Amino acid sequence: MPTPATAKGEQTRRQILDAAADVFAERGYWGASLNQLIGRHKITKGSFYFYFGSKEALALAVFKDLQERTAARLMARAKAAPTALVQMRSMFIERARLNSTEPSVKAIPKLCHDLMNHPELGAEMSSANRLPVLITRDLLSQAQADGEVRADVDVDAVAEAIVGAVIGFEELSEQTTGGRDFPQRVERFLDLFLPSLKRL
Amino acid sequence: MPTPATAKGEQTRRQILDAAADVFAERGYWGASLNQLIGRHKITKGSFYFYFGSKEALALAVFKDLQERTAARLMARAKAAPTALVQMRSMFIERARLNSTEPSVKAIPKLCHDLMNHPELGAEMSSANRLPVLITRDLLSQAQADGEVRADVDVDAVAEAIVGAVIGFEELSEQTTGGRDFPQRVERFLDLFLPSLKRL
Repeated sequence: MPTPATAKGEQTRRQILDAAADVFAERGYWGASLNQLIGRHKITKGSFYFYFGSKEALALAVFKDLQERTAARLMARAKAAPTALVQMRSMFIERARLNSTEPSVKAIPKLCHDLMNHPELGAEMSSANRLPVLITRDLLSQAQADGEVRADVDVDAVAEAIVGAVIGFEELSEQTTGGRDFPQRVERFLDLFLPSLKRL
Repeated sequence: MPTPATAKGEQTRRQILDAAADVFAERGYWGASLNQLIGRHKITKGSFYFYFGSKEALALAVFKDLQERTAARLMARAKAAPTALVQMRSMFIERARLNSTEPSVKAIPKLCHDLMNHPELGAEMSSANRLPVLITRDLLSQAQADGEVRADVDVDAVAEAIVGAVIGFEELSEQTTGGRDFPQRVERFLDLFLPSLKRL
């Protein structure tokens, strides 16, 4: 896809991404029509095809953009926490809260779920989807280096387990309370689980 | 829906349920056409409408049937384990293994995910979907009564956390390995998490 050379081009591309994130978050990949995706902010089809070329390319761009911007934001905010483990805890709880305060982030799990079996996009989605595991593992390794987490803890396994569990809490929370108790589920789990990683 | 009065009727109803479970497991609710659902075992449309009436009613019946039969089977097999906590551990790991040995059980999470926002089925699905949480909570309560689990553990919160986590492991496992490492993810998590519930 062409990289916009001008500020105006960058602005249009950003408008398309943001509008599409909202629609994917509400309707998932299969439920979102191209007209809905580009219709909300009066983006023309010509403009859309110039920047993205296809619904698939748009979905992948929305997914990566949301993953990266969300991670950057959460990391910036978590930096204030005193230790790596507290930073990690705060990132997961803040991430869960974003589902209410910024519903477009719900496009992340929806696109991931809908596209994981897609013949062309599946591999790229899976690879982009490693980001939360990698960030979690890095924070756990830091906590381990600082003596906050026991030396015998397998940080790769724990990172996979926490990210996996949080994916499940989001699904279960959507099913039972329309997502309202997602942050509490995450917090309660981390407060049960994290103490077992610490040095005695 | 009419209850079949004869053994032949029960057999036909069972055939339809089993065939539909396979198709829902592969394609989810939205991806499964009525022709696919009833076509595989040469069930006639007349016979289908006599027993189920609609694709929605069929989906709900398949979901409840799979939930109940799977739970009964896992509980029967877990009974051999020496303690309630070991029974619970074994049930979750066996459940994850079923995804490979009996792929029709994959219809459970797929139908749940696809139908949770359905205006008529959502509430019934959510209620049927409480079964794993209830079974887990009962086993944790038993373990607590037996002194295997600490008295201060909130068994409701822990049951929700374990079931939620396992839902997430299934999703993450499907995304990364096509579901192959689902049992290992469950086992690794339980071996990390369960010791923290035990008496010191």
